[in-house]
Amino acid sequence: MADGESSGEANPWTTHDTSIAYENQWIRVEHNNVTTPGGSPGVYGVIRYANRAVGVVPIDDEGYTWLVGQYRYPIDEYSWELPEGGSPYGESLEDAARRELSEETGLTAGVFTPLFADVALSNSVNDERAYAFVATELTPGVSAPDDTEDLKVWRLPLDDAITMVLDGRITDAFSIMMLLHLAAQRENGK
Amino acid sequence: MADGESSGEANPWTTHDTSIAYENQWIRVEHNNVTTPGGSPGVYGVIRYANRAVGVVPIDDEGYTWLVGQYRYPIDEYSWELPEGGSPYGESLEDAARRELSEETGLTAGVFTPLFADVALSNSVNDERAYAFVATELTPGVSAPDDTEDLKVWRLPLDDAITMVLDGRITDAFSIMMLLHLAAQRENGK
Repeated sequence: MADGESSGEANPWTTHDTSIAYENQWIRVEHNNVTTPGGSPGVYGVIRYANRAVGVVPIDDEGYTWLVGQYRYPIDEYSWELPEGGSPYGESLEDAARRELSEETGLTAGVFTPLFADVALSNSVNDERAYAFVATELTPGVSAPDDTEDLKVWRLPLDDAITMVLDGRITDAFSIMMLLHLAAQRENGK
Repeated sequence: MADGESSGEANPWTTHDTSIAYENQWIRVEHNNVTTPGGSPGVYGVIRYANRAVGVVPIDDEGYTWLVGQYRYPIDEYSWELPEGGSPYGESLEDAARRELSEETGLTAGVFTPLFADVALSNSVNDERAYAFVATELTPGVSAPDDTEDLKVWRLPLDDAITMVLDGRITDAFSIMMLLHLAAQRENGK
């Protein structure tokens, strides 16, 4: 490891006071008055998420996966993604993965295998963390999306979904990470 | 492509009114009163970013890259990442990549090659978009970090950085995507 990793990793920011600027069911916006690492007075607005992001890559015996299509309000675009959803702190991550997979695709999985954990989706301003699973031993069923979701479901070869990352058709960072992690694992013979 | 892609991709949300709940130099928080896709009344808080996220993978003739270590205030953790920064809408993305690379590592690059564009880092609540470049034909120089940055710089083999993604030592989503895109391209013989 680099010399740099052995020291100097303490928090160089000083927080003088924190106030809540906005809050709803999903996010809380904190406004902090701070001193920066350079010693200047400053402000830091931080978005704190009520939920962790949990994602699932379902893979069936034929090597197919499922994408979910939905309109994403914040970016004003339609987006094809792997099944993903929010999990309150305290809930089991695997329970969350099971619920989101079932709600969005109708699938039930016999096995959930962790793919990665504790990834920071956008650490410059928000604290959202992402956890991913691969779901196998799949059984079809009936989906039951949230009221806030208007979903389409698409079964396709996992390789085609990875191609959709590489050519830019999948733009959701969390889905991109899940699919490229799997691509890398397969190249490594796992 | 799936049948689902040919229709039904219009915005299923209705926005009744929008107010600004919080604003600073980097983000604006919009509170929207909406009707959900399911037809129920609801609210949607959206974080709009003043800047696009621009990232760079510097690669030298020996196959080494550079990671930058810094304390990330929102997640209260130290994080090793590729050089990344914010670019105001209107600025040339390549100019932004050149500036961030130079500020954070001191490197000047002869060639910037687009790696991916327009990725949504966390599309459930925010509109932040990410653009990535590979920087080659590198010349060393002197770094000049922002006042808000207290950075360490680490030169290491690109393969080692990819390993740090796969074993979870790199937790920044944008860095993860850049490194796994490169891993996938190399496996494809590009």
